[in-house]
Amino acid sequence: MTLTTLSVVDLLAAFRSPAPTPGGGSAAALAGALGSSLLAMVAALPKSRAATVEDVERLKASGQRCAALSAELEALVERDSEAYDLVMAAYKRPKTTDEEKAARSAGIQAAMRDAIAAPLGVMRACAAAAEQGVVVATLGNPSASSDLQVGFELLGAALRGARLNVEVNLGSVKDPEGQTLSAETRRNRGGRG
Amino acid sequence: MTLTTLSVVDLLAAFRSPAPTPGGGSAAALAGALGSSLLAMVAALPKSRAATVEDVERLKASGQRCAALSAELEALVERDSEAYDLVMAAYKRPKTTDEEKAARSAGIQAAMRDAIAAPLGVMRACAAAAEQGVVVATLGNPSASSDLQVGFELLGAALRGARLNVEVNLGSVKDPEGQTLSAETRRNRGGRG
Repeated sequence: MTLTTLSVVDLLAAFRSPAPTPGGGSAAALAGALGSSLLAMVAALPKSRAATVEDVERLKASGQRCAALSAELEALVERDSEAYDLVMAAYKRPKTTDEEKAARSAGIQAAMRDAIAAPLGVMRACAAAAEQGVVVATLGNPSASSDLQVGFELLGAALRGARLNVEVNLGSVKDPEGQTLSAETRRNRGGRG
Repeated sequence: MTLTTLSVVDLLAAFRSPAPTPGGGSAAALAGALGSSLLAMVAALPKSRAATVEDVERLKASGQRCAALSAELEALVERDSEAYDLVMAAYKRPKTTDEEKAARSAGIQAAMRDAIAAPLGVMRACAAAAEQGVVVATLGNPSASSDLQVGFELLGAALRGARLNVEVNLGSVKDPEGQTLSAETRRNRGGRG
């Protein structure tokens, strides 16, 4: 049972519950999936403005890309919650001995990087869908412009919401690339010195 | 079977399909329900900043109101699609005789008013949830601020998306109150004249 196999009623109840997951990251992914789906729908409507065979193909390709991105965002609804659950599990690891402390810290850092990858994936997918949306806005059925605009609104909110989650989690990462980089720098200097 | 008893996977597929419903209006309602649910979750979290009994009660009341608004928005997902289906059915009514034309036109106008009421309800519910969100932002657990901000993002997108639907449908209403009003005005003038 994943979050997206739940009924909408049950998923909304899960969001309302005080359990930490699903939270804002999964909600952002779902909003992005909704937005991309609307763009895919508009692209698939009859009476488009695509007048040439080339434009018909462009519109079709954009619609298919939006549908694929919607499926990707749908999967990220689950992945974001899973990643956050693993972060919380890592925090609960024992921390009595120095070895335990080091293992726990490494575990938290690894889990945190996954917890950043999920909303980062949401940001990328939303940006990619919005890019396709420009083609849909130009060539799609003009009478569906409100559906298209709602799609853009949802993608924008999803992207900003996902960014908030990236930023919050980045705050818990101890200098992710920096430490490796500075250790390398020190090694390189030592080698040369 | 309503839209919200579908699984999330199936509902997203329904949004992606070229069928006109569900469309942007239902998507806006769902985004609003998601946003309100996040606010309700944050209000229900332990470790809030409510220090007095009064504040604990205020936070609890705001959370309950957000949960109720989320349920209202959940119902509007279905209602928006139903209303739009009725508009399309009204357009398909016969229009051969003058009587048929008049009945069809009246049917379209009545259906259109319902199709405006649904997104208008979404706008009102989102605005009310955002208002409660101010209490949650002040008194709720500060560590959930990203969940709260995602909630606000979704409510904003839902409100603007619903407004687009109100505006589009208003364009199809023939002077909604105006004609009644001007007929009344004429009658009143006639009575006086």
